[in-house]
Amino acid sequence: MISKKMQQEIKGSATIRAMFQEGRAMAQEFGAENVYDFSLGNPMTPVPAEFNRAVVEAVQTVSSMELHGYMDNAGYPETRQAVAEDLNRRFGTDFEGKHIVMTVGAAGALNVVCKTLLDPGDEVLALAPYFGEYRSYVANHQGVLREVKPDAKTFQPDLADFEAKITEATKAVIINNPVNPTGVIYPAGIIQAMADILRKKQAAYGKEIYLVSDEPYRELAYDGNEVPFLTHYYDNTFVTYSFSKSLSIPGERIGYIAACPKMAGCSQALSGLSVANRMLGFVNAPSLMQKALVASMGAKTDVAYYDRNRQLIYGSLAKLGFTCAKPQGAFYLWVKSPDADEKKFVEAAKRHHILLVGGATFSCPGYVRLAYCVSYEMIERSLPAFKKLAEEYRLA
Amino acid sequence: MISKKMQQEIKGSATIRAMFQEGRAMAQEFGAENVYDFSLGNPMTPVPAEFNRAVVEAVQTVSSMELHGYMDNAGYPETRQAVAEDLNRRFGTDFEGKHIVMTVGAAGALNVVCKTLLDPGDEVLALAPYFGEYRSYVANHQGVLREVKPDAKTFQPDLADFEAKITEATKAVIINNPVNPTGVIYPAGIIQAMADILRKKQAAYGKEIYLVSDEPYRELAYDGNEVPFLTHYYDNTFVTYSFSKSLSIPGERIGYIAACPKMAGCSQALSGLSVANRMLGFVNAPSLMQKALVASMGAKTDVAYYDRNRQLIYGSLAKLGFTCAKPQGAFYLWVKSPDADEKKFVEAAKRHHILLVGGATFSCPGYVRLAYCVSYEMIERSLPAFKKLAEEYRLA
Repeated sequence: MISKKMQQEIKGSATIRAMFQEGRAMAQEFGAENVYDFSLGNPMTPVPAEFNRAVVEAVQTVSSMELHGYMDNAGYPETRQAVAEDLNRRFGTDFEGKHIVMTVGAAGALNVVCKTLLDPGDEVLALAPYFGEYRSYVANHQGVLREVKPDAKTFQPDLADFEAKITEATKAVIINNPVNPTGVIYPAGIIQAMADILRKKQAAYGKEIYLVSDEPYRELAYDGNEVPFLTHYYDNTFVTYSFSKSLSIPGERIGYIAACPKMAGCSQALSGLSVANRMLGFVNAPSLMQKALVASMGAKTDVAYYDRNRQLIYGSLAKLGFTCAKPQGAFYLWVKSPDADEKKFVEAAKRHHILLVGGATFSCPGYVRLAYCVSYEMIERSLPAFKKLAEEYRLA
Repeated sequence: MISKKMQQEIKGSATIRAMFQEGRAMAQEFGAENVYDFSLGNPMTPVPAEFNRAVVEAVQTVSSMELHGYMDNAGYPETRQAVAEDLNRRFGTDFEGKHIVMTVGAAGALNVVCKTLLDPGDEVLALAPYFGEYRSYVANHQGVLREVKPDAKTFQPDLADFEAKITEATKAVIINNPVNPTGVIYPAGIIQAMADILRKKQAAYGKEIYLVSDEPYRELAYDGNEVPFLTHYYDNTFVTYSFSKSLSIPGERIGYIAACPKMAGCSQALSGLSVANRMLGFVNAPSLMQKALVASMGAKTDVAYYDRNRQLIYGSLAKLGFTCAKPQGAFYLWVKSPDADEKKFVEAAKRHHILLVGGATFSCPGYVRLAYCVSYEMIERSLPAFKKLAEEYRLA
């Protein structure tokens, strides 16, 4: 038999798998065009042509052993330099190439940071509601995840709860901005307040507490909302990033960690990130992707596509009487369940061929997540079903 | 400060880093052509042209969202099917696509297998001398690595010690074949004997003990030596593989796990592998590489190149009086240190501008590893230096 721990994990995954298969069965029974699947957070805008051109050019011009070969565990120097310069240009930061470690996506980046920071029993705070995988990433390295409550009106963090949850055992805080699953953006004022609290606690406990800013949705910000760049607010910060959303290349597993140059013991931390990349079996970020990035660092997918979807779905659901957090970034809408038990609401939606994810997945029951990284036409087709669902709950 | 565990790891890595930098400093001082670096096990034969053609063709013909998109955590169905068919054709096995999980190289594969199998305290056996990273891969998942002694003459496993080291706590045995660092191949007779012992122990303890066959060097076998395919010998077997050596693409991080269809609880084990791939932050093997593999599964790099090096270095060192294990596979030569303390021998070699790795790295002091994945010309140039080294130790 496989491990007892993994047997439990498989049971948890079986629920998601069941939902996925149910969706496919529904599509077969009712026709794919009559099923409205808002459950998956997968990018769906085209890959920028310049990125694919950069891939082909790298294959045709770089020596194949350099192109597909090993490099330093932290990545090719020119890729790390290109990332540093791109960040400096956009955010007025002072990164050098050495502060950047290329990783197997943001998921790889987070595991590398956790491996570098955590001794057994160290606590990591996450701001509910949060991406459920954070639980695994922290547990992989024997850390203990603690949750910070949200303000139930704004879905900004409850700062009093944040301060109360920081203890001597706290080693790190993960902030995801813009937020999966709520679509809200934590503004500068909130970040500043959190940084002040962290500095106070660092002084009180005489130890470092690290901020891990997980930013795969950074470029998906709407209505001119700005996503604060955290190294400007707090020195002990790691930024974890993935090109999955900005270039629509999630399958390629390419991202990075940027360590704030002013971090305490920065050089030791950078060594730790490299060693962790190797020890965990990532070894390095995929080499061809690193080469292609250098020539297409400025490439961006069509963010306006998601914005158009956002306006349609948010406007329509609000008009139907649903209570939604105003979506400012990422491609998620966070909807208050009209049923106290959101599982029943998810089931009711399913009867109207609408697939949603219940808030328990994100440690926040009573809500559902709707991923609008779908076709505009599917949203249009789904609106009569949402209308019936609203009527069923007498929302109007 | 980063974790205490990682601070220790960095110290260990610093030694390797220091050697690497010393090598570079020597190359600067004496000229690169006068330094003979046999320390790194990096592939150095060209990438097959058909592989690069397959990459370009995939970019030019597959829809970019399919090409770079998410797929099932286990990989694209057509890639898994292509791997299964390739194995069946070559080894007469009965794999279906579902038995194959695409991974981020063999290092990723081993971590995924360990995550799937190990509960805290479970023991994993490795056959000394072994690739030192196995220690990290087992410890990452709170397993305990135990070492099996080699027969000091043949560097085959000491079967009596193997049997003695299997306890009720043993969950898995890692076999690397051909072997890094010795270059020997474990033949069918040894594998059969080990499988028989494992079956006996499984029956005695009433539990599964898994074989993990780590085979990144499978295609690098010389003199017609055959590398046994382990699922023919033992049902509870996972084969872990990387295309790093066979295609010279180590930077791309692409490999797989093949689970024996007759394994106990095979379907649960396969679910575990998929879940582990996601939980550990690999998520999936790089997507473009998976697509390119389908069209170039039969491609192979120039193995004869390594064979030519092998004959030159083994023949020359044996003639000079060094005691070497006869290299049958991979691209390593395992040399008995003429000094009881192999660290002193490594230092002596360095004075002749020869860079080697001491056996302690592989849990086998008293020996050194020489990686002959270098240019033939460098080996030729190095021979006078080896001659002086032999004279210093009065070997002739």
